[in-house]
Amino acid sequence: MRHFTIGLLALSLAGCAAQGQQVSAPVLSKEALATQVGEKPTPTSPPTGQQWLYGSAEGSIASAQVYKSMAKYVRAKALNRAIKTQTVLAEDATPDAPRFESCGTKPLAAVFDADETLIWNVGAMRYMAEQGKDFDPAIWNEWEKSGAGKALAMPGAIDALKTMRDAGVTIIANTNRTAANAKGTEDALRMAGLGEFKHQETLYLMGDDATGSSKDGRRVTIAAKYCVIALAGDQLGDFVQAFNAKGLSIADRRMLATHPAIADLWGNGWFLFSNPVYGPSIRGGYDEIFTPETKWEPAP
Amino acid sequence: MRHFTIGLLALSLAGCAAQGQQVSAPVLSKEALATQVGEKPTPTSPPTGQQWLYGSAEGSIASAQVYKSMAKYVRAKALNRAIKTQTVLAEDATPDAPRFESCGTKPLAAVFDADETLIWNVGAMRYMAEQGKDFDPAIWNEWEKSGAGKALAMPGAIDALKTMRDAGVTIIANTNRTAANAKGTEDALRMAGLGEFKHQETLYLMGDDATGSSKDGRRVTIAAKYCVIALAGDQLGDFVQAFNAKGLSIADRRMLATHPAIADLWGNGWFLFSNPVYGPSIRGGYDEIFTPETKWEPAP
Repeated sequence: MRHFTIGLLALSLAGCAAQGQQVSAPVLSKEALATQVGEKPTPTSPPTGQQWLYGSAEGSIASAQVYKSMAKYVRAKALNRAIKTQTVLAEDATPDAPRFESCGTKPLAAVFDADETLIWNVGAMRYMAEQGKDFDPAIWNEWEKSGAGKALAMPGAIDALKTMRDAGVTIIANTNRTAANAKGTEDALRMAGLGEFKHQETLYLMGDDATGSSKDGRRVTIAAKYCVIALAGDQLGDFVQAFNAKGLSIADRRMLATHPAIADLWGNGWFLFSNPVYGPSIRGGYDEIFTPETKWEPAP
Repeated sequence: MRHFTIGLLALSLAGCAAQGQQVSAPVLSKEALATQVGEKPTPTSPPTGQQWLYGSAEGSIASAQVYKSMAKYVRAKALNRAIKTQTVLAEDATPDAPRFESCGTKPLAAVFDADETLIWNVGAMRYMAEQGKDFDPAIWNEWEKSGAGKALAMPGAIDALKTMRDAGVTIIANTNRTAANAKGTEDALRMAGLGEFKHQETLYLMGDDATGSSKDGRRVTIAAKYCVIALAGDQLGDFVQAFNAKGLSIADRRMLATHPAIADLWGNGWFLFSNPVYGPSIRGGYDEIFTPETKWEPAP
């Protein structure tokens, strides 16, 4: 797999002088190019997505921005006396024909995915990348068991969770970590500074019901007890399982997730964190990622 | 460069049954793994960051979320009669000791980077990636000249710009595209549906002054005429050039950008778009991206 960096500087920096003066030769210092477009990978570089997400100021700010926006939303919603509706889709509804139940007097909750939503799994991510491994379920299983203290709260998470809890909102995690490792996950979340999570009360795991990696059933279980005023995740399955439907093309999945009937929820009840490292977002060839209308080549 | 996908499913999907039942064998179908962690690249896959940014629903939603939040912020600010301050850092100030000038009665503006902030450069990105090229200044120069119609408005941008303009806010682009290709960039922005941008009025380019790729001077020029109530970009240089200071380590750059004196500006005057494809965020080895405290390995 070739590694690709690209950028913005077309012309000489040195050549730019007085206003309006035109320059023509593409002359760029290595240093100027790196500032604008990034550096080429070396044998000791993690993958580009990891550099952006876990290392860069930009990756941290992207997380903090979403957390800030979400905390403000949840706090305002909690303090508003109006009757609320669930952000969990009703059981018989679909994203293109959505329906959300009224909450009645249920206590308020916000429901989060765990991995790359509450915590950065930097210990496991570094280990697998540095070893040159693809995802290895056995290693991940060890990570769930023993990673506590080596995972980091995502930037902005600690302050945002405090704001939400102070407004009377229960924080719940719904993750595809396995029920068999419940204690390891409770420990990892607490040791990252995110507070107490308790299995089957404020922590829902894969294996809690018979529906595998779909989180829909667990969302229904949570919404039976709570008024879920916000959902957060880095993958669309953290919101509605229908987005993971088998056979859905990349373009159709994007269309469904931004259907006019639900588009307004993003940033407004549903909060998505950027994760360019892994997930169902990482798939597709050139012809699926780009449309024929935007195909371009330089003049010969 | 090895290509790395990683993920979350540690244990058997098929094995998850009744509540509380524990499963132990890491057995995952190829399909279940792909849903959770992504697919391995093929010879016809663009880089992972491009799959996420340009193809996935998640990449589109991340952009739309920032645009929605920014439009709401800018509209509220514009309609508020209180005296405003610039979001452009004062000339003699620094991010860790910031100062922002009062606006007086200047007309309002919001200032955007262009590439991967207003538009997705899908034509050029696909071409260079598919050709196996690193960034090529000569090709990029052609793209600036002839890419109009092949660049896409970023998700959420068209609606957000309309909201801001309707609130009386002038939309200005400040980009490191070159002044020599001003017409090509005006055309690209207009043909993406983003409206009219005019060089040296609402479009500022590299070469407009003698300071090369630093946007600070152009920001000062704009702030002399306008009250800049919001800045937007995908790289920290779109906010303050000091973040690009030579020799700033990755950790120090992150610290400076999230310094308590300015941290509150993110999502609140300064709006960052996720770009894991290129930029100064793309650099660093394992020891720069990860801290020693989070180093982990599975039990032997």
